Amino acid sequence: MKDFTLDNLTDVVTEAYTKNTASPRHAEIFGALIKHLHSFAKEVSLTEQEWFEGIQFLTETGKKCDDKRQEFILLSDTLGLSMVVDAINHPKGGKGTESTVLGPFYVEGAPELESGSNIIKGDGDGEVVLVTGTVSDADGKPLKGAKLDVWQTASNQLYDVQDPNAPEWNLRAKIKAKDNGEYSFISEKPTSYPVPTDGPVGRLLSAAGRHAFRPAHLHFIVSAPGYETVTTHIFVDGDKYLDSDAVFATKAKLVTKFISSTDEKLAAEYGLPTPFCRVNYDFGLMPA
Amino acid sequence: MKDFTLDNLTDVVTEAYTKNTASPRHAEIFGALIKHLHSFAKEVSLTEQEWFEGIQFLTETGKKCDDKRQEFILLSDTLGLSMVVDAINHPKGGKGTESTVLGPFYVEGAPELESGSNIIKGDGDGEVVLVTGTVSDADGKPLKGAKLDVWQTASNQLYDVQDPNAPEWNLRAKIKAKDNGEYSFISEKPTSYPVPTDGPVGRLLSAAGRHAFRPAHLHFIVSAPGYETVTTHIFVDGDKYLDSDAVFATKAKLVTKFISSTDEKLAAEYGLPTPFCRVNYDFGLMPA
Repeated sequence: MKDFTLDNLTDVVTEAYTKNTASPRHAEIFGALIKHLHSFAKEVSLTEQEWFEGIQFLTETGKKCDDKRQEFILLSDTLGLSMVVDAINHPKGGKGTESTVLGPFYVEGAPELESGSNIIKGDGDGEVVLVTGTVSDADGKPLKGAKLDVWQTASNQLYDVQDPNAPEWNLRAKIKAKDNGEYSFISEKPTSYPVPTDGPVGRLLSAAGRHAFRPAHLHFIVSAPGYETVTTHIFVDGDKYLDSDAVFATKAKLVTKFISSTDEKLAAEYGLPTPFCRVNYDFGLMPA
Repeated sequence: MKDFTLDNLTDVVTEAYTKNTASPRHAEIFGALIKHLHSFAKEVSLTEQEWFEGIQFLTETGKKCDDKRQEFILLSDTLGLSMVVDAINHPKGGKGTESTVLGPFYVEGAPELESGSNIIKGDGDGEVVLVTGTVSDADGKPLKGAKLDVWQTASNQLYDVQDPNAPEWNLRAKIKAKDNGEYSFISEKPTSYPVPTDGPVGRLLSAAGRHAFRPAHLHFIVSAPGYETVTTHIFVDGDKYLDSDAVFATKAKLVTKFISSTDEKLAAEYGLPTPFCRVNYDFGLMPA
């Protein structure tokens, strides 16, 4: 019989997860996972106590997940894994809008609203901002049937799903762009905010002496029939956390100026006082 | 500001988790973890869909854990990680009893019973076995005050905590060895059994085309004042799964013959009919 030792364990386990594996892709992933998992433990000479703390950490991370919070995505984000996966699947250099992390607070099923809608459902303590732009292909040709799934924190630094006092779908909507590719909506200027620190990820950040803040941003999932959907943010230029995003998700091309506008025509169109805060961002999608 | 790419992400993330980390050991572990986590994703060019399936898998694994089931330990066991950690911390070649995995079904707080006790609380469908042996130091000197925390499955292949019909602490006890190091107890001969397959780990085994069985064994945690506690099993010689343990935990020196005994004196002492099943295993502990 096999007597398992440090010298043969990784080979034996790898064989067990590859030789009868129906899917070649599964076999590839299992093999790499086992190699790196075992190498990690060997490299640091992981103690049994540390192993058990790891088991407890992962268990607590699972327990923290519910329909409104995804602590494993937050863990992946804060360890930079999400951005590695993003970079693998969306290499730089393309002509379309760059992507970044989904984050743990996306909720499927936000109400579909016409372009021009106001998505502020809460008390509106934040600074009102008019968000405008276009959705086109990478050459600037407007796309018909584009949708922009948007979500963001309120001025209290919380997403609606984190805040028991927030109305449902506050600062969250699926905006239908016009046939000419133009979109607009009224929201609040996003603020920088800490990722949740009351769970295992908070303890990890604390152990590493890292702050938990993300630079202010609006989340977008932009889609159009026949084109590749892009999951991205637009960041507020000048935010003090742009250089130290807790989840490493910043990209220079996604940083955007939020300006003070005195455009009377726009103000009248959207029922805003002047001056008002405004941001414009044009998205470019690649063919699917 | 930093623009994160595949080329710089691992360096940037590693720096973030090591430069301000209070504990040098934490910094070492975080650095190795990030390196292997990122390398894994890059090596297999992990897709976003695969990443998300991984997130869901880990989340479900956490959700499956409760006070009676530890799916993350089972995952660690079935991926061979637990045995790697065992091998790191208990290198072969020592004179003491070899260790193996704790497994996911250990429960702290089993009743303390005198040597010679019967730990069968259930219907006793299994074959009765007399377990005997000694606890000594590695040179064979009997140890005073030794305890043996034992647990095992019943004949229906379930641990008490898996079986709603099992009496509490069935086939589970903390046996106090005698002052001369001898211990004995009456139990049931263990049977091979599948690890739980109704959770994420079951799906993993299935995807890899692996069976879920473990060769029959008794679990032991053997301790004595001043000596290193050993977590181990004794395996039933001849079991057909000894060569393909689902958790890679077999070791040749832990495989033991369960014999049919006609010893009338022993039978009378323990109130057993003859012939009866018997196993003897002598444990050797190393100084703490």
